[in-house]
Amino acid sequence: MKNSLSQRTINRLTQYYTILRDYSKKNIDYITSSTISTLLFIDETQVRKDVKLINCKGKCKVGYLVSELKEKIEDVLDYKIVKKAFVIGAGNLGVALSKYSKFSQFGLEIAALFDTDKAKIGTYIDDKEIFDLAMLKEKVKDTGINIAILTTPNKVAQQVCDEITCAGIKYIWNFAPTILRAQSDIKIWNENLIGSFIQFCAIENIK
Amino acid sequence: MKNSLSQRTINRLTQYYTILRDYSKKNIDYITSSTISTLLFIDETQVRKDVKLINCKGKCKVGYLVSELKEKIEDVLDYKIVKKAFVIGAGNLGVALSKYSKFSQFGLEIAALFDTDKAKIGTYIDDKEIFDLAMLKEKVKDTGINIAILTTPNKVAQQVCDEITCAGIKYIWNFAPTILRAQSDIKIWNENLIGSFIQFCAIENIK
Repeated sequence: MKNSLSQRTINRLTQYYTILRDYSKKNIDYITSSTISTLLFIDETQVRKDVKLINCKGKCKVGYLVSELKEKIEDVLDYKIVKKAFVIGAGNLGVALSKYSKFSQFGLEIAALFDTDKAKIGTYIDDKEIFDLAMLKEKVKDTGINIAILTTPNKVAQQVCDEITCAGIKYIWNFAPTILRAQSDIKIWNENLIGSFIQFCAIENIK
Repeated sequence: MKNSLSQRTINRLTQYYTILRDYSKKNIDYITSSTISTLLFIDETQVRKDVKLINCKGKCKVGYLVSELKEKIEDVLDYKIVKKAFVIGAGNLGVALSKYSKFSQFGLEIAALFDTDKAKIGTYIDDKEIFDLAMLKEKVKDTGINIAILTTPNKVAQQVCDEITCAGIKYIWNFAPTILRAQSDIKIWNENLIGSFIQFCAIENIK
């Protein structure tokens, strides 16, 4: 089912989930589509449409059962299946992503970081060690982790991409603002922060 | 027109643009939809569809004129209209975004950073000064900049959101993984990195 959902629907569902976690912690049982829409500045009919799409039903006047809607979203978006990844590049962005609290809530676990800077190798970001990039092949083999989050500077991104695919990485979430070349069995997802901002400008007519 | 384009289309257009800039620098005049599709691991018909959508035509066998397609994308996505923004929070993520080379290519200019940490205030990230958050109101007034990129830790995000909207910020690109509350005339765009990753997992069936 996840495959049939658009990126914007997935985005909204993850945001509903953030609210539902919050309500769940506060032991609030029900939430209305109106509350969700107000918190997220989106249309109430959109919320209803999304919730209907994942086969969850609300009760007249009281709204959706928080625990049920939360679980439905977890199921549909596979949050309970933990996916482990390595961060390649322990610069500002790599460190920021390694500390990003939301990832683990949604089933993404950063296992370790890799860099070539000797001053960084052997140090930790929270409980995550920074390893020498030369160790990646061994770590891929030991752990079976084959997802990499690439956060190196642009100018070395292609070279590092070649290295990490040789080391056994199969999936690359690429934050370097460049187009990477790799063999067709390697799957690359180019993160596009500026695309997101341009969409914001378009919707709000920011000039 | 920009308003009618989906986020995924905008994402792809920004990626085509990255390739076109590269080709333009190398003085290559033409590019085919097949080349673009190979570089981006997407379907060739998708490329043709997108290009047709922005009213650009290719020539049989030689492809699209690089300069023309590049300019069309610039026009449609308003890259030439520079939008200035302040980064709020000079932590790892704030610094990473301030250094992100792609933003300026696409018309987003980070004017300065703001933080409350006395050790950071007065220092620079490249040529961008880190100011005391208490100075924001004055800086908004002086510069007319009303876009903020919020990168503070989660626990202070709401409080900082209240402060910056009081200081005159109207548009917030929020990277803090929390739902912010603000008056209805304040426009908030919640960046959702995990939503992007989940989409990657869905498309590539990553388990």
